[in-house]
Amino acid sequence: MTVFFVSKFRIYYEDTDAGGVVYHPNYLNFMARARTEWLHSYPDFFEALRQQKILTPVRSVTIDYHAPAILDDEIIVRVYLKKFKSVSALFFHEIYRYNTEVLLCTATVKIACVNQNLQLCCWPDYQKMLALFK
Amino acid sequence: MTVFFVSKFRIYYEDTDAGGVVYHPNYLNFMARARTEWLHSYPDFFEALRQQKILTPVRSVTIDYHAPAILDDEIIVRVYLKKFKSVSALFFHEIYRYNTEVLLCTATVKIACVNQNLQLCCWPDYQKMLALFK
Amino acid sequence: MTVFFVSKFRIYYEDTDAGGVVYHPNYLNFMARARTEWLHSYPDFFEALRQQKILTPVRSVTIDYHAPAILDDEIIVRVYLKKFKSVSALFFHEIYRYNTEVLLCTATVKIACVNQNLQLCCWPDYQKMLALFK
Amino acid sequence: MTVFFVSKFRIYYEDTDAGGVVYHPNYLNFMARARTEWLHSYPDFFEALRQQKILTPVRSVTIDYHAPAILDDEIIVRVYLKKFKSVSALFFHEIYRYNTEVLLCTATVKIACVNQNLQLCCWPDYQKMLALFK
Repeated sequence: MTVFFVSKFRIYYEDTDAGGVVYHPNYLNFMARARTEWLHSYPDFFEALRQQKILTPVRSVTIDYHAPAILDDEIIVRVYLKKFKSVSALFFHEIYRYNTEVLLCTATVKIACVNQNLQLCCWPDYQKMLALFK
Repeated sequence: MTVFFVSKFRIYYEDTDAGGVVYHPNYLNFMARARTEWLHSYPDFFEALRQQKILTPVRSVTIDYHAPAILDDEIIVRVYLKKFKSVSALFFHEIYRYNTEVLLCTATVKIACVNQNLQLCCWPDYQKMLALFK
Repeated sequence: MTVFFVSKFRIYYEDTDAGGVVYHPNYLNFMARARTEWLHSYPDFFEALRQQKILTPVRSVTIDYHAPAILDDEIIVRVYLKKFKSVSALFFHEIYRYNTEVLLCTATVKIACVNQNLQLCCWPDYQKMLALFK
Repeated sequence: MTVFFVSKFRIYYEDTDAGGVVYHPNYLNFMARARTEWLHSYPDFFEALRQQKILTPVRSVTIDYHAPAILDDEIIVRVYLKKFKSVSALFFHEIYRYNTEVLLCTATVKIACVNQNLQLCCWPDYQKMLALFK
């Protein structure tokens, strides 16, 4: 797990539920946001994905909830690129309460690389990016 | 206000926030769902919109919140078609707690009729639908 | 996997994203809705949970995405109770496009039974419900 | 309209719908986030609200949609405090595409100040805050 990226988000009312905590699927939003920010940190790669109209649908998720985030919390999402294959990518994520060691949740997310016709296709500049991500 | 349609929905955790009530923008979801169900009650019109790839973006909303809905409530959305013009429509909505006279919120929503290029266009079968909606 | 429950939902704009399909975490909403409807089918058990102020936080999720649902689709969520232990429950879910054999996604969700202080506690009427669910 | 605050947000998949644009109620999320960030810029006032367990439910919204935000856009939310009364507040908001003069939407939102029993109550330090906001 070589590439490592951190994003910070605030918990707003929209993220919470009547249990007083973040609604459980919403942690996947924070992880998707962090992966997007990670992608924006590679502007050439991001632009290539855009121009080739590549979509990156989620294929599977495994998520474990350890402790809840609550309203007004700030959270940190750590994104690790575990595997970068020619037509897919596997990410691991950890969410912490900001400025603490409190681990809120962890998840593994598998993403596919598909073209406009929703058929699997190779990442743009695959070999170059693979070297970059090592 | 001639056309009148009713939809019923349950309040789930996803609809609520840490205040213990339905998160305020989510009432617009229930209204949009009810307008969709109303549209499905005119299958020919619905099919014409689909085939002509017409979109119906919301142009403006005025919403008043009278009382909160809470988890596990059932709510009724009443949809009234106030105006049906050639390139737009004006809807009024009331949301009640099911089986009660408790009015939770009211809203007026203006919708435009636009084509694939996001330019205003006339509703399909406008004169026929206008007569039908009277 | 003995207990088996089915709910049907429509896909609205709120459920979709700019990829033209249902946004991936939202399938967890449909599953949570279906579990809620299943719970409502046992009104005494539901009422006991309410009166004892029991919460049922999600502890872990494993979800696989097979095919996308799109706008205006109708979907069926099948809920199976795989394990019903004294302080937790394990559910399996399948989502199908309505009236087809098209499997859209499958997920396993583990739920805990906790009291107001967020401590693990036994389900109300555990032995009775365990017998009922067999 | 004296107090003025700006927040910046990215548009992620979660914010968009199958029309390819931000789903219309979600602009209210961005405005609520910006009001929260504005509140955090007055930490003593924020802490007083918290300690007195004050809630700030939305009473009414008027929103006009001028142009759509799309995936990966960055947007600016400008928040203006139009009126700060003893038991309510009236906010005006403008959302612009970042680094442009493109106005996406405008909205007026009325907020109430209520206590734990959901009864109207006076803002903490009302006179002091009123002077501060002028």
